[in-house]
Parts: sequence; C-alpha cells; structure tokens
Amino acid sequence: MARVSQEHLDARRRQILDGAARCFARNGFHATSMQDVLKEVGLSAGAVYRYFPGKEDIIAAITEETFLVIRGAFEDAARMTPPPTPDALLGRVLGGVLSGQVHGLERRTFAALVVQLWSETLRDDRLSALLDEGYGAMRVAWAELVDAYRAAGTLRGEVSGDDVARTMIAVAQGFLVQEALFGDVRPEVVGNGLRGLMSITPQKIS
Amino acid sequence: MARVSQEHLDARRRQILDGAARCFARNGFHATSMQDVLKEVGLSAGAVYRYFPGKEDIIAAITEETFLVIRGAFEDAARMTPPPTPDALLGRVLGGVLSGQVHGLERRTFAALVVQLWSETLRDDRLSALLDEGYGAMRVAWAELVDAYRAAGTLRGEVSGDDVARTMIAVAQGFLVQEALFGDVRPEVVGNGLRGLMSITPQKIS
Repeated sequence: MARVSQEHLDARRRQILDGAARCFARNGFHATSMQDVLKEVGLSAGAVYRYFPGKEDIIAAITEETFLVIRGAFEDAARMTPPPTPDALLGRVLGGVLSGQVHGLERRTFAALVVQLWSETLRDDRLSALLDEGYGAMRVAWAELVDAYRAAGTLRGEVSGDDVARTMIAVAQGFLVQEALFGDVRPEVVGNGLRGLMSITPQKIS
Repeated sequence: MARVSQEHLDARRRQILDGAARCFARNGFHATSMQDVLKEVGLSAGAVYRYFPGKEDIIAAITEETFLVIRGAFEDAARMTPPPTPDALLGRVLGGVLSGQVHGLERRTFAALVVQLWSETLRDDRLSALLDEGYGAMRVAWAELVDAYRAAGTLRGEVSGDDVARTMIAVAQGFLVQEALFGDVRPEVVGNGLRGLMSITPQKIS
C-alpha cells in the first residue's frame, strides 16, 4: 500500500465528517444509514471504515467537534478584558458558532445538526455521557465568568453563579433551536434581546 | 355497533395520545412505529385507526396539544396584574409546563418529547407549518408583554420588543433542552438565574 501523508489522512477524515454532518443535519442520526453517508461523501465503504468502524464512531467524533467549536467560541469571547457582559458575549458566541465554518455547514444546517444531536442523545448512552461531560465543563467555565462579573461589580444580584451560568447556556441553546426551526437568528437579535431583558427591574419577591 | 358516550370516546383518544407521547419521548418519532404505539396503549389497530388514520395524525395532535399547554402556562402567568417580570414569569411558565400534568408525562419525559418534536420538525413539512404558526403566535403574545413592561416603566432599554420576546422564548426553550438532557431544571433555578442576569449592567456599545 502506498504511503499517504498525514495531510491526506486528515483531509479524508474531514471529508467524511463534513459529509456525515450534512446527512445527519438533514435527516437525523437514526434515519441516516452508513450507505447514505458513503453516497454523500462519494467514498467506498472500505475507505470510510478505515477511519470510522461504524456510524456510532462518526457520531461521537462529530459530537466532540461540535462541543469544541462551541467551547472555543465561548473561550475566545470570555478571554477579552474586561469580559464582555452577557449581551455582547452571547451575541459573539452565537455569531461564532453560526458563522458557517463548522463542518462547512450553513448556519441553519449547523443548528439543525445540534438539535438532531440532542434528540439522538436521549436514546444513546455513549452520546449522553459525552454531552454530560461537555455541559458540566461549560457550566463551570461560565460560572467562573459570572464570578468575574460579580468581582467587577457588574453583577449586583446575590444569586448562585451556577444558576446564572445555566440561564446563559439556556439562551444559547434556545437560540440554536430557533435558528434550526425558523432561521434568522442574527447576533444583534441576541444582543438587543438580552440588553432589553437586562434593563428590566425584577420584582421584589415577598 | 353499540353507541358509546362522548366521555368514552374522549378517554380513549386521551389514552392513545398519552401512550404515543410516552413512546415518542422515549425513542423519537421516526424510530417509533404504529405497532409500538398499539403495544404501549394496549389497543387493537382497528380501535386506534378509528381515532387516528396514521402516525402523522397522532404526531400532529400531540404537537397541537403541546403548544396549547405551553401557551396556556404563559397566558395564565401573563394575565396577572401587574404582569410578572421575566424572572418570575419564566419560572412560572416552566414550572407549569414541567408540572407532570401533560400527557401524564414526568417532567423530564415531557421535555424529551419537546426535543423529539423539534427534531422531527426538521424533516416534516406539516409539523414545520404547525410549529411556525405556534412560534409566530407566541412571539406576538410575548412582545405584547414586553410592551406592557415598557409602558409600566419596568423595561428601560430602547430595544425591539420582538427581540426581547425571542430572547425570553429562547430561555424557555433552552431550559427545556437542559431538562430533557440533564434534568434538575427547577423553577427557582430559572428565576434566580434570570434575576442574576437582569442585575448585570450591559456595557455601552461604542
């Protein structure tokens, strides 16, 4: 067998993952067969199995990459000094995630892939473990950011950092749902919406 | 054929929808067959087809009911005078939706049903039309609430009511995702998290 360069191997792996991501985004994980993936990427079974023994391995690789992308977008935004407040931060994170750079997918297709991933996670223990881990790490990182807001005097409420982190994550997840189902989630919608929300005075709880 | 009472017909219909909802929440819409539904509800094909000619009709009925439940929880909360601010409102809405009263489903199972519904919507034009309509109506109702905040002087930001409405809907959607995937979404998490978020002063946009 001829020796192939690492670049070639990487490009081939990339080609398989991107094609599979398109299939999954379109039709869900369950309804997509390995045959569908082979057809989409235009490779033989032998060529694909060399990289991924089964559909589950492709799904796991795509899941890990998707988390890396979301985490990377967050870390890029959070690294700024001072850290951007949630309106600016979440606009940036969603703008980054939906920039069409992931798996070469259009923004709405990427959002659809994430929704399909959540759905598949409900029936797949391996995916579920991956998502638990990613969500746990995200909660910790975002709660640290909330602590930074508090230390800077930007956040005044005496509430749990974890609750605020979960709420910020919920905003990101919810807008991914909206992009997948309805499209038209622009970063300025997220930024303006959060600024409006943050300008509301909460009622006193009696 | 013996005449049967309307109560009997309604109860039978309810039995089918609740059983189907359990199946769909567990395994997704695509992977659930009519056979699975028949087995779950313990009825013959003939008894079920009398109410629903096909799986699609059951899915459409469940989708409409789910929207009614979410809309009802929102309307109950928004009807209060003065309208509760988003932290209290969204805590109430999610508490209502996740109260275990829908289709007799446990809170996490109901959240899973919603995620499965979104996933199926990506591949089903009929569902997609239903969701478009429900989301559109929700946006209008929530934007009216944002106008009420503004009129009451509670919301000070000069931002589009629609952007704020979409952000509040995103919070609800995101927490449904978290409940489905990880559980433990208590109304106080939503309320505290939003109060924390609302206590943050947005940065000036230069």
